[in-house]
Amino acid sequence: MGSQPTVSDVAGVAGVSRQTVSNVLNAPELVRPETRERVQAAIHSLGYRPHASARRLRTQKSSTIGIRLDPITQDGISGSILDRFLHALTERADRQGLRMLLFTAAGPDDEIEQFRRLSDAADVDAFVLTSTFHGDPRTEWLIEHGQSFVTFGRPWGIDDMTDPEHLWVDVDGRSGLRDATAHLLSQGRRRIGFIGWPAGSGTGDDRREGWLEAMRERSGLTDDELRLLEVAAEDRVPFGADAIRRLEAQGGPVDGVVCTSDSLALGVLTVAGGRIPVVGYDDTPVAASLGFSSVAQPLDEVAAGVLELLTGAHGGRVRPDEEVADPRHRLVAPRLVVRDGPPLIGPR
Amino acid sequence: MGSQPTVSDVAGVAGVSRQTVSNVLNAPELVRPETRERVQAAIHSLGYRPHASARRLRTQKSSTIGIRLDPITQDGISGSILDRFLHALTERADRQGLRMLLFTAAGPDDEIEQFRRLSDAADVDAFVLTSTFHGDPRTEWLIEHGQSFVTFGRPWGIDDMTDPEHLWVDVDGRSGLRDATAHLLSQGRRRIGFIGWPAGSGTGDDRREGWLEAMRERSGLTDDELRLLEVAAEDRVPFGADAIRRLEAQGGPVDGVVCTSDSLALGVLTVAGGRIPVVGYDDTPVAASLGFSSVAQPLDEVAAGVLELLTGAHGGRVRPDEEVADPRHRLVAPRLVVRDGPPLIGPR
Repeated sequence: MGSQPTVSDVAGVAGVSRQTVSNVLNAPELVRPETRERVQAAIHSLGYRPHASARRLRTQKSSTIGIRLDPITQDGISGSILDRFLHALTERADRQGLRMLLFTAAGPDDEIEQFRRLSDAADVDAFVLTSTFHGDPRTEWLIEHGQSFVTFGRPWGIDDMTDPEHLWVDVDGRSGLRDATAHLLSQGRRRIGFIGWPAGSGTGDDRREGWLEAMRERSGLTDDELRLLEVAAEDRVPFGADAIRRLEAQGGPVDGVVCTSDSLALGVLTVAGGRIPVVGYDDTPVAASLGFSSVAQPLDEVAAGVLELLTGAHGGRVRPDEEVADPRHRLVAPRLVVRDGPPLIGPR
Repeated sequence: MGSQPTVSDVAGVAGVSRQTVSNVLNAPELVRPETRERVQAAIHSLGYRPHASARRLRTQKSSTIGIRLDPITQDGISGSILDRFLHALTERADRQGLRMLLFTAAGPDDEIEQFRRLSDAADVDAFVLTSTFHGDPRTEWLIEHGQSFVTFGRPWGIDDMTDPEHLWVDVDGRSGLRDATAHLLSQGRRRIGFIGWPAGSGTGDDRREGWLEAMRERSGLTDDELRLLEVAAEDRVPFGADAIRRLEAQGGPVDGVVCTSDSLALGVLTVAGGRIPVVGYDDTPVAASLGFSSVAQPLDEVAAGVLELLTGAHGGRVRPDEEVADPRHRLVAPRLVVRDGPPLIGPR
C-alpha cells in the first residue's frame, strides 16, 4: 500500500466493504457496534487519517458544502436544471446554517484537484456532485480519501439500490416517462412515439425504459411495431424537429410523442404542434410559457435528500441492523405537469 | 452619532464624501495623499473600525466573495441571466484564486442580516450585488459599514457616471435597443414597434430610450406617431402575444418589433413570427434555439469588470488626480446577435 493509507486499506485490514468504512466515518449509527470497533481498530493500527474537515457537518459550527458549477450550455434549454437544483440546495442549506462554496473545473481531473485543494485547506466539509457516470474518477477519489459527499445522479452501477458505491439522490426518470406515456394512452391514443438521446447515457436509457414499459403494458403493439416508434437525437431543438420527421417517415403518423427533454419537445412542436400532443422533460420555463406538458423534477426534494444524507439526519429510516440500507440513497418520483390546451407554438 | 462610528461620521469629520472614505479604505491609490491623511486622521480620532475582512481581497491569501442567489423565477425565460452571470463570475474568480460563497435572502432586510453575519464571521471579504434599485437599503448598509462590494446594475442615481454612490458594472441596454432598432431601420423598415415593461424600472426605461433615439434619428416618424408604436407588458410570454395584438390594433401594422426581453419576443413570435422580424433581449438559449435575433449581454465582460473593481486592478485607468473617476464603474456595451433567417416559431 502507498505511504498514505486509504479507505481501501482500512477496509482490507478490517475485512469490511469500503462503504462500511465510510459509514463508520460519516454515519456510525448505520454500523453494528462490533463492526465499528473492528474498523476503528484498523484505522488506528494503520494510522489512517481522514480529512479533518470530513465530519465537521455533524458539529454545530456553520459548515461549508462545495459544489462544482458546470460550464453554461448555450444550446439546449434544459441546461438550467442544474442551476435550479443549485437554487433549491442553497436555500435549504441556508436554513440549516450551511454555506455553499462554488468552484469550476475544466474536467474530472481538474475537479479532483479542486477537491484536494478545498479539503486540504479545510475550506469545505463535504461535496455535492452532479452529472455522475459509471466509474466516475471523482467519486473514486472522494471515496478513497474518506471525504463525505453526495451525488445528484446515481452511480449507474449494478447495485445502486441495494449496495451503492456512495450516497446518492436521483429522480426516477423511468417512472416519469411511464406516467407521461400512460397519460397519452389513457386519452385513447395508441401510437405514442419516443424521441430520446442516443443510447448509452444512463439517464436517457432509463427514461426510455419508462416509455417502453407503458407501451408494452397498454398499447397492444408488438416489440417490432414499437421499434419503429422511437428515434434518437442529440439534445438540440432543431434535432427534435428533424427527429419527428424521421419518426413518422419510418413508422407512419403517431398519435403523440414523449421526449427525454423539453429541447427535443420544443423542436417537435415546431413541426407537429397542435396536431399531436407532445410531452417534454424538466418542465422548463419554456414548457410553462408555450403551454406543453412536461415531466417536472422535484428539485427541492432532491436538495432535501442531499442534505439529509450529508448531515446524517436519516429520520426514521435508519436501520442499525444493516450496514448498508436505503438510507444510502433517495430515489425521488418526478411529477407529470399536464397542459392539455393547445400549445402557443406550432409549424408556420 | 451612534456608539459605533460609521463611514458618514468619518466623512463628516474629514470633510470629504463617503466615496472618498470608501476609496481610502478600498482603493487608496485613487485618493490624493493629503486627503488620505485627513481621512486616516478622522478614522483614528473616531476609532472607526471597518470590518477586518473588508480589505482582505488585496492580500495574497485566497479570499471569498459572497453573492445572493435570487429565488428562481419559473415564469419568463430570461431569469437565467443571473445564473449565467454567476457562471461567468465563478469561472473568473476561480482563475484568480477567489472563492464564491452563495447565500439566499427573503428580502432586502434579510439580505442585510446575511451581510452582517457573513462579514462578522469574516467568512466573506466582499460582496457582489445584483438587481439593485434607486435608494437600495442594501448598498446603504454596505457603504455605512465600509464593506467592499460591487453591484451588477447601476445605482440608478443622478450621478451614476460621474460620482456614483458605489462601484458598479452594468450593461448599456440603451445602446443595445438602439442597435436593434437601427438594424431593422437599415433594412428599409420604418414602423418599428417597441414592446417593453411598464414604466418605472430603471432597466426597462433605459432600453426604451434606445428604441426612441434610433426612431427619432432615422424613422422620420413624429413623436405623436411614435407614441402609437409602443405598448407595455409584464414579462411573460403570453403577455407578449397579447401586446403585439394591442400594438397593431392601436397603431396599425408594424414592420418589425424590438422587445425588452426574449420572453416578450417569444410571445410576439407566436402571433407574428415569419411575418415581421422580432428582436428580443438577453439572447437566451430559446432565442438561439428558435432562431430569432436578440441583444446579448456580455456577461463575461461584466464579471471581469466586477473583479477588476473589487480587487482594485484598475489597470491604466487610475487617475490619482481625481478622488472619484471612471474606475468606479464599468458600462459594458451589449452585442446584437442577428438571426435574419425565418424563425422556427410562428402562429399555428
